[in-house]
Amino acid sequence: MSSTNEARAADPRAPLVGVLGAGQLGRMLALAGHSLGARFLFVDPARDPPAACVGEHLQLDYSSPAALARLAACDVVTYEFENVPVAPVRTIAEHTRVYPPVEALGIAQDRFYEKSCFQDLGIPTPTFFNVESHAELMQALAQVGYPAVLKTRRMGYDGRGQAVLRTDADADRAWGELGSMPLLLEAFVPFERELSLIGARGRDGSTRFYPLVENHHQDGILRLTLAPAPDVSPERQRSAESYMSALFDRMSYVGVLALELFQSGGRLVANEIAPRVHNSGHHTIEAAHTSQFEQHLRAVLGLPLGSSELSFPSAMLNAIGRMPDAAAVLGIPDAHLHDYGKTPREGRKVGHVTVRAPDWATLAERLSLLKPMIESPP
Amino acid sequence: MSSTNEARAADPRAPLVGVLGAGQLGRMLALAGHSLGARFLFVDPARDPPAACVGEHLQLDYSSPAALARLAACDVVTYEFENVPVAPVRTIAEHTRVYPPVEALGIAQDRFYEKSCFQDLGIPTPTFFNVESHAELMQALAQVGYPAVLKTRRMGYDGRGQAVLRTDADADRAWGELGSMPLLLEAFVPFERELSLIGARGRDGSTRFYPLVENHHQDGILRLTLAPAPDVSPERQRSAESYMSALFDRMSYVGVLALELFQSGGRLVANEIAPRVHNSGHHTIEAAHTSQFEQHLRAVLGLPLGSSELSFPSAMLNAIGRMPDAAAVLGIPDAHLHDYGKTPREGRKVGHVTVRAPDWATLAERLSLLKPMIESPP
Repeated sequence: MSSTNEARAADPRAPLVGVLGAGQLGRMLALAGHSLGARFLFVDPARDPPAACVGEHLQLDYSSPAALARLAACDVVTYEFENVPVAPVRTIAEHTRVYPPVEALGIAQDRFYEKSCFQDLGIPTPTFFNVESHAELMQALAQVGYPAVLKTRRMGYDGRGQAVLRTDADADRAWGELGSMPLLLEAFVPFERELSLIGARGRDGSTRFYPLVENHHQDGILRLTLAPAPDVSPERQRSAESYMSALFDRMSYVGVLALELFQSGGRLVANEIAPRVHNSGHHTIEAAHTSQFEQHLRAVLGLPLGSSELSFPSAMLNAIGRMPDAAAVLGIPDAHLHDYGKTPREGRKVGHVTVRAPDWATLAERLSLLKPMIESPP
Repeated sequence: MSSTNEARAADPRAPLVGVLGAGQLGRMLALAGHSLGARFLFVDPARDPPAACVGEHLQLDYSSPAALARLAACDVVTYEFENVPVAPVRTIAEHTRVYPPVEALGIAQDRFYEKSCFQDLGIPTPTFFNVESHAELMQALAQVGYPAVLKTRRMGYDGRGQAVLRTDADADRAWGELGSMPLLLEAFVPFERELSLIGARGRDGSTRFYPLVENHHQDGILRLTLAPAPDVSPERQRSAESYMSALFDRMSYVGVLALELFQSGGRLVANEIAPRVHNSGHHTIEAAHTSQFEQHLRAVLGLPLGSSELSFPSAMLNAIGRMPDAAAVLGIPDAHLHDYGKTPREGRKVGHVTVRAPDWATLAERLSLLKPMIESPP
């Protein structure tokens, strides 16, 4: 039997995909990727992370020599979160393909580079200033006016590392909390709603864009996505796609990219990008012809991209803190449960539910049954 | 972190599902089941079988004491092929839930019991005789007439262990080959087409039936399934469902069941059952609201069954011997690749492709592109 195994290891149809991070996004990548014939190697310092049951898991730091050696030997390496350290990724990229490209990581990890990139490409974004001292903060506030948003340039996610400033006292307090880190001051954008665009670019430069979705946050954490976003004109969809196309070209991008946008007055304003599969694209597992996870793998493996068409109106609800009762959720018609296998903990994304319906009215009905199950689990 | 892990092990939301067999059916069960929060333990004497990458794999014989001990400690035990030995399954069933029930295994493993069960329940089936000697064979042939089919009672699959008899010489030759085993002689049913019904029964007795599908075999191996089967009247669908309902009740069944049928003249004639997820149900992954794999797990875990409605006309093509070129397949709109991670070998099912379309004409067009890729791989 050993010859059999050696044959498989050398089989070009069984590419080994290295993934930095083994959380739920890695888990869902592997659940989609085994069908494409891919095998998975996850590197994550966590013990028993969500993806460990669907691939090989190396419990190592991202920068450890053993991890780098194994990743460098993969057919392709990708990542499931954008705060992975850039230096080891650069090292891996000297030995094998890394997608999305390292440049995308650098841009996504620093809000100043990110916003500067939007500005360079003519993508509308809030007025912003780099802030390196209390004096620069007050100068920037004089130009932007209140309210404004002070953000750390790096390592912010799920609403952390930012403060809305409405008074000089807010500014002083926020400076006291965040002033030790590189900061960015942004104008506060009064927006009607938050939208996001998920798209993909293949190794051959071809692109696919999913319909814009509408996102609802609470305490800085995504709670609900409506897909497609209601009342999006074809022009608005095209605007969003043109912004992402410009970003794709600028970064020679390969893989799935998420672009978060504010709808403000008649226009879209870019907030941030995530160079990876994204929480607001989870509905694509059941509601699109090709899921964002399969799409990302098709892109990084050099396979043709799939259709990004949606088949049904759908909604995605995040389970925060703990999972709802599985039997109750699955009793709702066309509701689909996604348990990430995580230990319950306050504020933690432990799973999600996607529900589809033939029309919006039925979707609203099903959502009204699901929401209380997820917001107040047993 | 160790307390975290112990908590997960004791977490009633993370049931451990034991599976006898770790082939592609087990692999697809796990790919569906992780989202339900289940964990998987596979027992299979093969080295590196298809399911090994999506769960824990014990490379042991089904009857080994170590395997039995681990399986007995699972929350529920199921199987992915019906020729698993009954004795160890009975032992496991003394310690934990085993679904489908052991009785279903006993019936499905012996064509005489199976056909007798059909007869008892009033389900049309070919005339059949148990055959224990050459004299009994000739007596049975005298009643059934030529052509007839001589089959081993046990261990037949993919057309093996059977012979079509058209003359006395055929009968003598087949007796020479098969006569050392318990045999069954059946009337040959001249049929227009082969259909199959996939259905499920939950632990609460509720049932769901997928639309009948049409199956095309070559050399005894399933090559193509059309789903739904074209031109099936509601009455025919109801007949098939009533046969399966009778089987469900007789066996106090829990899980997915497949019923293979001949359409002969105006009626359906039962050929055999498979007490498990089935090759002719693979289209349900992309084309039904709930896949047969998720449905089976919902059933055995005591969760509510999901809708068995189909969303699209679809077709499933088996990849026999080796996989087609992935890029070519994925270039076809709405084609979905399923690579089982198996070593290529003549006559072996190594994967399948499901293709969907908004209508039958488009489906036929896509099928005509896919067929040559799969029948003559590069």
